[in-house]
Amino acid sequence: MAALMSTQVRLKQRPSGLPGPETWDIATVPATSPGDGDIMVAVRYISLDPAMRGWLNDAPSYIPPVGLGEVMRAGAVGEVLESRAEGFAPGDLVSGAFGVQSVFTGSAKGVSRIDTGLAPMSTWLGGLGMPGMTAYFGLMDVGAYKPGDVVVVSAANGAVGSVVGQIAKIHGSKVIGIAGGPDKCQRVVERYGFDACIDYKAEKVGKRLRELAPDGLDVYFDNVGGEILEAALGNLKQKARIVICGAIANYNDMGAMTGPRNYLSLLVKSARMEGFVVFNYARRYAEGQAALGGWLKEGRIKFDEHVEAGLERFPEVLTMLFDGRNQAKLVLQV
Amino acid sequence: MAALMSTQVRLKQRPSGLPGPETWDIATVPATSPGDGDIMVAVRYISLDPAMRGWLNDAPSYIPPVGLGEVMRAGAVGEVLESRAEGFAPGDLVSGAFGVQSVFTGSAKGVSRIDTGLAPMSTWLGGLGMPGMTAYFGLMDVGAYKPGDVVVVSAANGAVGSVVGQIAKIHGSKVIGIAGGPDKCQRVVERYGFDACIDYKAEKVGKRLRELAPDGLDVYFDNVGGEILEAALGNLKQKARIVICGAIANYNDMGAMTGPRNYLSLLVKSARMEGFVVFNYARRYAEGQAALGGWLKEGRIKFDEHVEAGLERFPEVLTMLFDGRNQAKLVLQV
Repeated sequence: MAALMSTQVRLKQRPSGLPGPETWDIATVPATSPGDGDIMVAVRYISLDPAMRGWLNDAPSYIPPVGLGEVMRAGAVGEVLESRAEGFAPGDLVSGAFGVQSVFTGSAKGVSRIDTGLAPMSTWLGGLGMPGMTAYFGLMDVGAYKPGDVVVVSAANGAVGSVVGQIAKIHGSKVIGIAGGPDKCQRVVERYGFDACIDYKAEKVGKRLRELAPDGLDVYFDNVGGEILEAALGNLKQKARIVICGAIANYNDMGAMTGPRNYLSLLVKSARMEGFVVFNYARRYAEGQAALGGWLKEGRIKFDEHVEAGLERFPEVLTMLFDGRNQAKLVLQV
Repeated sequence: MAALMSTQVRLKQRPSGLPGPETWDIATVPATSPGDGDIMVAVRYISLDPAMRGWLNDAPSYIPPVGLGEVMRAGAVGEVLESRAEGFAPGDLVSGAFGVQSVFTGSAKGVSRIDTGLAPMSTWLGGLGMPGMTAYFGLMDVGAYKPGDVVVVSAANGAVGSVVGQIAKIHGSKVIGIAGGPDKCQRVVERYGFDACIDYKAEKVGKRLRELAPDGLDVYFDNVGGEILEAALGNLKQKARIVICGAIANYNDMGAMTGPRNYLSLLVKSARMEGFVVFNYARRYAEGQAALGGWLKEGRIKFDEHVEAGLERFPEVLTMLFDGRNQAKLVLQV
């Protein structure tokens, strides 16, 4: 019997700005057999996330960087082929940090079974996966969301932002999105049901926020940093909460980063700015998945995926995250 | 009987940088008689605080600016001369926002009696006054202090910083101060009992923090902003809390303010940065005063005052706050 082969995307050299083709090595190698406690998984869908850019920097962070020569880290879903771990059997559908490769062999620790009765396989990388969990715990826990809060979300068209806004709408909030361009803004309002969307490429964000939320905002869910964060800081209500989820605008150029010049609004408004990493909530994912899965079943929330096919296209598809070409949660079909 | 006179310091014009003699008008006028619900108070000590600079700007803030021609706002303590308000009688010693004047006449709302059995009169403007309350609620409530937390305090020699550090030492913390110059640093360690003090004028703050707290810090109590805030952001533990109390470094030059360039440490460390205004805690002052007054009685905490005499010297004495000439909590004796 011919050995099962795994195609792997490995980190070849660290990028200084945007990762390009020179960043990666692609190789096909025989899949290793599972040892004690391990499972072997045929990977079906791989999640592409902005956080990946941070994992490429050789700098201390909330998680160690991906090492040179290592398979690129990624969340993924797939089907168990072989199991030497308790609780898993061939044919199980599972989610885990399987990496950018076609066959994963390794510890079953941190791997969970997924229920395709609740949502299709790829949705477990989106609405019921890391972006959905980021939206849910970021808004409800870090943002200390209360029904009726005025909520502002940047990158409102994205996998996280669209879910944040929809959760707040379900709870009766006024929700204002911020996105780039009329098409994205239209989608934010028409498809995701936000009350309004500010096109930061065409409008002055601070001025529009004052018009749309004259009493200020309670929660700002920040996915971008930069001038949009400053515009939000300039329009806070007393006791407002800013959730720092990511800062795409700055991810590829850490040296030239600037801080929000008006951060003392936090003092004036007795407000706070808090960062978080979704992995901190890993033990509570079931709670988030039950809530979001329930709303999905009831037709009260929409999760969108932008699926591209072909593992070997990873280097090119990844760049779509950073130039805004992805239409929704970006997923690579193996 | 000759009319009782009141000497008043009024805002003449708004300063653009540091307030100078041209900022103020000094006049002596007959004191007005108390109306219904009012008291008349002979003001004995006036509190001088960095927050005063903010009150001079014609900009929306947590409190309206002092109007042109109005008596300068200030916390003060004094003795009731006449009362038409329930709960107050001549001879009562009281604390309130009496302003920079020798006789206050106005509403008794927000005025409280002080207990000179617990601490001398002027201490009710310091350790048991606004700076003490700022330290207590800033550390315990905003900073969500837990016994054993590693605590870093800037302006550690100041009226707020010295109390923050002493409270944390009482609870068994490692406490690191930051101050300018060897004399202040020596005082922070020897008089206030901090474990160490970094002289920001002579040492690299970030490097010293790494040496003194290699596992990072849990609470940073920020009184200064600027590069010291960045040094603290670069040395956070997971789930650290930064308390934004003031930013003296920036108070007089709001146009040129910069934000902390490494604010994304909040994301990486799941940390938060939260501002507050001590007046929000007005209803809980008795709790703070009981705690601090108890430690004072037990000899476990030291409150220092730097007393200058002469109401008419207010314009000159105020500037001592901004050039570092005050040795401790600055109080003007009328």
